[in-house]
Amino acid sequence: MAGHDQKVYRSSTTAPVNIAVIKYWGKRDATLNLPTNSSLSVTLSQTDLRAHTTASCSDSYPYSEGDTLILNSTPQNIHASKRTLACLSDLRILRRALEDADPSLPRLSAFPLRIVSENNFPTAAGLASSAAGFAALVRAVADLYELPQSPSELSRIARQGSGSACRSLMGGYVAWRAGSAEDGSDSLAEQVAPASHWPEMRALILVISDAKKDVPSTEGMQSTVATSALFPSRAKSVVPERMTAMENAIRDRDFASFAEITMRDSNNFHATCLDTWPPIFYINDTSRAAIRVVHDINRAAGETICAYTFDAGPNAVIYYLEENSERVLGTFKQVLNPAMEGWAETKSAQDVTSFLEALNSRAVEMLNTGVSRVIVTSVGEGPLKVSSHLVSESGDILTGSSN
Amino acid sequence: MAGHDQKVYRSSTTAPVNIAVIKYWGKRDATLNLPTNSSLSVTLSQTDLRAHTTASCSDSYPYSEGDTLILNSTPQNIHASKRTLACLSDLRILRRALEDADPSLPRLSAFPLRIVSENNFPTAAGLASSAAGFAALVRAVADLYELPQSPSELSRIARQGSGSACRSLMGGYVAWRAGSAEDGSDSLAEQVAPASHWPEMRALILVISDAKKDVPSTEGMQSTVATSALFPSRAKSVVPERMTAMENAIRDRDFASFAEITMRDSNNFHATCLDTWPPIFYINDTSRAAIRVVHDINRAAGETICAYTFDAGPNAVIYYLEENSERVLGTFKQVLNPAMEGWAETKSAQDVTSFLEALNSRAVEMLNTGVSRVIVTSVGEGPLKVSSHLVSESGDILTGSSN
Repeated sequence: MAGHDQKVYRSSTTAPVNIAVIKYWGKRDATLNLPTNSSLSVTLSQTDLRAHTTASCSDSYPYSEGDTLILNSTPQNIHASKRTLACLSDLRILRRALEDADPSLPRLSAFPLRIVSENNFPTAAGLASSAAGFAALVRAVADLYELPQSPSELSRIARQGSGSACRSLMGGYVAWRAGSAEDGSDSLAEQVAPASHWPEMRALILVISDAKKDVPSTEGMQSTVATSALFPSRAKSVVPERMTAMENAIRDRDFASFAEITMRDSNNFHATCLDTWPPIFYINDTSRAAIRVVHDINRAAGETICAYTFDAGPNAVIYYLEENSERVLGTFKQVLNPAMEGWAETKSAQDVTSFLEALNSRAVEMLNTGVSRVIVTSVGEGPLKVSSHLVSESGDILTGSSN
Repeated sequence: MAGHDQKVYRSSTTAPVNIAVIKYWGKRDATLNLPTNSSLSVTLSQTDLRAHTTASCSDSYPYSEGDTLILNSTPQNIHASKRTLACLSDLRILRRALEDADPSLPRLSAFPLRIVSENNFPTAAGLASSAAGFAALVRAVADLYELPQSPSELSRIARQGSGSACRSLMGGYVAWRAGSAEDGSDSLAEQVAPASHWPEMRALILVISDAKKDVPSTEGMQSTVATSALFPSRAKSVVPERMTAMENAIRDRDFASFAEITMRDSNNFHATCLDTWPPIFYINDTSRAAIRVVHDINRAAGETICAYTFDAGPNAVIYYLEENSERVLGTFKQVLNPAMEGWAETKSAQDVTSFLEALNSRAVEMLNTGVSRVIVTSVGEGPLKVSSHLVSESGDILTGSSN
């Protein structure tokens, strides 16, 4: 036998958040995270929101501890997370196949993994970090293992960590095909269009606090599937029609259609939550006010220049095109506190008086008091390999260095 | 020709409000007020909420003015209300048939009508008064004309005034059969059970103010039918199944089933409103808090002892049985201001500490600040003929005397 290889192998990646415009809600298989319907999202820029993960492995790491994961400086009990274990197991199998085919490769699949991850999301903003987190984990380990699989093939693995994570393995406009195979082999993400196809897409995130604790999304979607009388028609007919229409809108860079489908699908998803027994409410009166203001701005503009969407929480994500930044952001900046963190780089040369006059005063007041911060971002790229590592060459954990 | 008959003919009635437990939302014919689905309601006691109407007619009334209607002391432009005209026209046709068959009858059908109506609803409480109002109008004119038609036959006429008015022509538990005939001849109300079958039913109304103006229900339901992707399954399958289950629950006096169907149907209706384009919101955060508290009370009780339902506005109607008055009312009385108008006759000997401890504190705070008054009432009878008239023997208008 050869002597011990003491080297620490490392690979680091950053991965983006994605915000769905056709929502994922409902699993047909809870273990494999197979959805009841396809979904489609916009990958957001990592300049603003990202998970940063270093995957490392070494024969020098203590085998007694097995694989370890440190998330935002806090060690995680990886063995209690079936989802993380499922991802790592599948990645190891792919690595082992490479090693079996080429005995000259180091036997990384046998070494313990040390994974360190951080995200730069505002604390307590209620922004879903699991998609970016699992995408970064899968991408970093796949890079560490030098796996040849495509992002789409890796998305099948990331999906098991968190359903929507599969869409964060690619940039731009990404569909998650529900698939029909029982083993989930055809349930994976596909890039509908790269960010460069329609780079003008912008997103304004309104962080809205809600004292009520949300129903966790896994629990919520299981409950909707089991009890909502309206859900079957969403899964069977509403979403399939919208997927086609949304892909056409993206292909044609047709913002009005993109926007209407986005808003209607968000409303449709939250309607099935309300129809769940007992009912689930993710949007609150401040969210309602954001909906109202978006409709008012579009009415005042005489065209559809912005669109809201809400995930499993009250935060609003408002999509718009760069060419309408001044009208959309300018109006929201006046409605909210212009000195609020997040507006820094926003231009607002254009006079938005006519828009402000078109707004419902009660909705303006609700937004003004209910929005705690904003994030202005845009469509962006998929995971990026980075040279900034969260594990040193000797295997030490380095945190706080990335953000 | 005989000399002029100067007599003023009068008949007065009071009519109740009804609150649906299977909601009416959607018209298949807007002129005839034919619904897309059947509905079912509980008629509420006239002790608390009622419309009081006197129908009078006389050959001495000025023909130049035609029929006149005074509502809450305000003259109405009856000729601008197609709905009122349709009701009066149908009632006249029935009277004329009687007169044609018996020439000895006074020719009331030819005389101008003078109708005076008042209701005792709290001002600005947002309680739908049109159902009680049209039921009282149709019942009073039918009595004036001494029509032999049954309440169910008259419901066909009242339906043209306001869809839900047809259900206020009977007491107790009332179904409105959607029917399928194009002329609406089979779209009428039927009593499922009289109040005496299940007299223990109580209703607590929480009056919740909302600064936002609601979308009028006629406009809202047309919009839902035209745009909601989920609405067809509500109308075609959800409601028909629930009608049967609800009638069984009432027949068996099965409160748990009655309550669950009531709550699920309210949620289902509001879900289709949220799925409407643009979305319609009738319930707000205070309504949500009432929903939360009802679920919490039921959980603390270990059984279903109360049920919420919401019409096209934020007010909550909470059904419960007399035997649970102390637990349900006692808890709400502590949550809300016990000195608030409306609680007066409520007993609260039972200790409700365990219920109060089970409540979400944020929901309690929302209710405490968002509910402006309460009305404690119960299942009740249909329209009652009364001797208190709002028109004098000589045809003068007498108002303010009834409440």
